Amino acid sequence: MNRVSCLTLLIALFLSAGVSAQQNEDAFFIRDIYDQALTAGDAYEWLDYLTNNIGPRLGGSPESAAAVEYVRQMLDTMGMDTVWLQPCMVPHWERGEPEMGRIVNSSRMGTVDLDVLALGNSVGTGPEGITAQVIEVQSLEELAELGRERIEGKIVFFNRPMDPTQINTFNAYGGAVDQRVYGASRASEYGAVAALVRSVTTRIDDIPHTGVNVYQEGVRPIPSLAVSTKGANLLSDLLVTENIQVYLRNTSRMLGTKKSYNVIGEIYGSEYPEEIVLVGGHLDSWDVGRGAHDDGAGCVQAMDVVNILNKVNYRPKRTLRCVLFMNEENGQAGAIKYRDESFARDEYHMAAIESDRGGFTPRGFTFDAHESIFNEKFRNVLEWLPLLEPYGLSLDKGGSGADISRLKDQMGLLIGFAPDTQRYFDYHHAETDTLEAVNPRELQSGAAAMASLVYLLDKYGIN
Amino acid sequence: MNRVSCLTLLIALFLSAGVSAQQNEDAFFIRDIYDQALTAGDAYEWLDYLTNNIGPRLGGSPESAAAVEYVRQMLDTMGMDTVWLQPCMVPHWERGEPEMGRIVNSSRMGTVDLDVLALGNSVGTGPEGITAQVIEVQSLEELAELGRERIEGKIVFFNRPMDPTQINTFNAYGGAVDQRVYGASRASEYGAVAALVRSVTTRIDDIPHTGVNVYQEGVRPIPSLAVSTKGANLLSDLLVTENIQVYLRNTSRMLGTKKSYNVIGEIYGSEYPEEIVLVGGHLDSWDVGRGAHDDGAGCVQAMDVVNILNKVNYRPKRTLRCVLFMNEENGQAGAIKYRDESFARDEYHMAAIESDRGGFTPRGFTFDAHESIFNEKFRNVLEWLPLLEPYGLSLDKGGSGADISRLKDQMGLLIGFAPDTQRYFDYHHAETDTLEAVNPRELQSGAAAMASLVYLLDKYGIN
Repeated sequence: MNRVSCLTLLIALFLSAGVSAQQNEDAFFIRDIYDQALTAGDAYEWLDYLTNNIGPRLGGSPESAAAVEYVRQMLDTMGMDTVWLQPCMVPHWERGEPEMGRIVNSSRMGTVDLDVLALGNSVGTGPEGITAQVIEVQSLEELAELGRERIEGKIVFFNRPMDPTQINTFNAYGGAVDQRVYGASRASEYGAVAALVRSVTTRIDDIPHTGVNVYQEGVRPIPSLAVSTKGANLLSDLLVTENIQVYLRNTSRMLGTKKSYNVIGEIYGSEYPEEIVLVGGHLDSWDVGRGAHDDGAGCVQAMDVVNILNKVNYRPKRTLRCVLFMNEENGQAGAIKYRDESFARDEYHMAAIESDRGGFTPRGFTFDAHESIFNEKFRNVLEWLPLLEPYGLSLDKGGSGADISRLKDQMGLLIGFAPDTQRYFDYHHAETDTLEAVNPRELQSGAAAMASLVYLLDKYGIN
Repeated sequence: MNRVSCLTLLIALFLSAGVSAQQNEDAFFIRDIYDQALTAGDAYEWLDYLTNNIGPRLGGSPESAAAVEYVRQMLDTMGMDTVWLQPCMVPHWERGEPEMGRIVNSSRMGTVDLDVLALGNSVGTGPEGITAQVIEVQSLEELAELGRERIEGKIVFFNRPMDPTQINTFNAYGGAVDQRVYGASRASEYGAVAALVRSVTTRIDDIPHTGVNVYQEGVRPIPSLAVSTKGANLLSDLLVTENIQVYLRNTSRMLGTKKSYNVIGEIYGSEYPEEIVLVGGHLDSWDVGRGAHDDGAGCVQAMDVVNILNKVNYRPKRTLRCVLFMNEENGQAGAIKYRDESFARDEYHMAAIESDRGGFTPRGFTFDAHESIFNEKFRNVLEWLPLLEPYGLSLDKGGSGADISRLKDQMGLLIGFAPDTQRYFDYHHAETDTLEAVNPRELQSGAAAMASLVYLLDKYGIN
């Protein structure tokens, strides 16, 4: 089957008068990068170690310290000019004993266990647990409509589903995640005793998904737990005709603040060392599953970019910096520290790429920059499209990544690696986010895509 | 993140003077199709039944008869104008007892079991098995170079890997599969006693992959078995320094010819009933795994096209025919029968779409037609690109499908549904091709993509 894309041809026709010798050289070089990544890339092997030998890596946990040391050692073996740890202070939250959730009084079904999981930073219910009547809402706004008299003393059940009709699942996630982040805190303002939040996934199954929960200052913190989508559907069905009481128990607690680190490796630029090209992901994960797609994949891909460019003997003109951020999931202390130090040193990140959308088949990159310069810089980048489109990659306007987005005022390009999004939220923050959910070819193709873009960014710069 | 694609904008600019009211109507209709497919599609549920209740469905097997009856019933429930079975005679081959493969004389490793699986149509070794020296080759051509004196009495080990650097894995498959199809027969011509073929997958693991093996007429058939890629790598390593003997045992046999059926459902066209739009897949599978991606997915997607168009109340102008072909894997008796009867009735397939590349995230469609009309027809179709590109779909020149490609002389368009290819050959013809390997969103998105194209084909026709 001939897969030469008509899009490539049209775009090539549109953007250029012909294929220059320069473009030919770049096409061959990118082909080399892909060959290396698909035959001799190390991302999958590193991910195996990170997920299966170290495990989940919540900020502040011993495992996160092990992960810091592991990736430091791996970067060391790559012959970078320097590898260092950048200290940051991170909250250390602990899930505690396995959670319990149970419908206790259904006249139709009697007692039914629910699959629940405490949300990040949740306080505990106390060892006795909590039993209370459940009230279902679809949004944060609905709380105000119901008011204190309807909510006080109850468990607020946030049940707005992630919209399955969105083609890009990240848009659907963005449309549902406010309930998980702010639900408990807002419900507490109206006197609720706990929050139970529908897992933010389109998959209908028994697996609850955790994620960050934030208490506003001055609000009494109440327990905040996720319930599986099947559990949420059942509960919602019963609530149509019954007054349902639910028992919840979790022993989660905040253990205080721990010292942790961003891990940074650097190759000095041979011509423009003051222009930094960053490639990164975040090393921490939630404490369920193994943080394989979120974001072990992004870390090992970023590391493999350096590795692959080494193997094809590419010596960067600009400073290539691989950054594995700490604590993205639970406060972004690593990203904040990185930004503060970077601005303090008056650095210029000409470009930064973050991979934090899973290790799936690459579809392209999304670009962000300060509004005043975006169009000009993006136009510049679009000229490379004919080189990347044969690999199924598109270049679009869009968000970059939580860890790098704070660098915008350095007036560089902020870039998000954009793999296929269909499966990501099946695994996100859940026990299913393991190595088995990652396909080696898909993972390595992502490293190749990122290395190819880094090569072009480094070689040509951005006006 | 704003995912409006710059490609869409460029192409839209290039192809049209503006967005017409007609295009707006089509955009809304296709949005409806996707909404239905992603919230109320039935493909995944049908696939669950087909794979888990019925199981693998090799042509001639009782399970293939169960599958015929199941999909006939499902089509019946959809209120089609007619559903019928088209008889065809298919070979019935049986794997027999679990195969055995063993390295018996390595001085370095002693005795080592190999994961092997008889290839389709293979004869058996006899109950005692075969032990013989192994000779490794990289191609069919190498047999001639070695000649009878080097090959006679030996097991020929075909070990050319599927090229992992190909971005489209079907190209890599095409570059390796000749060893599996013709290896045993060609080796027999030089006096070999058996063929052992490296599994056609880029995944390096312990899982052997079966597939069709064809004996040329007049050649003495010898046993033909696949070995896992890890087993192949080990064997090849040992052969560098040792004369290795391997023991093989399989009890496969041909049971003769059985009557089976293509299953066909049809909605008569309201305006142009003589113009047929076919959508289909193949109902049979190999006898290992559950035939989930190959090609249960294609069948349930084709059925869901009819189902979804029903649900959005679309009444086809042209005759919409859903065809589930029998025996694609092992001779294509169903496709041959369908073609013969179609030509005998002087039918015109204006367009035919086959889904037989797995139930992965849709990337687009590939188009084929008689050379004399291809450019004109394809140009016609390309005008719909702005409607499909927002769903990540491209339209390219390429192959269609094994079952429909015989219809080319009817001078219609032959279309292959083209999902992402990265994972397909991890599961292809192997025990891992189960429902668990199929993602519901990816599967349903494919049904939506196919239904959208069928809608446009039916509504506008092709000049």
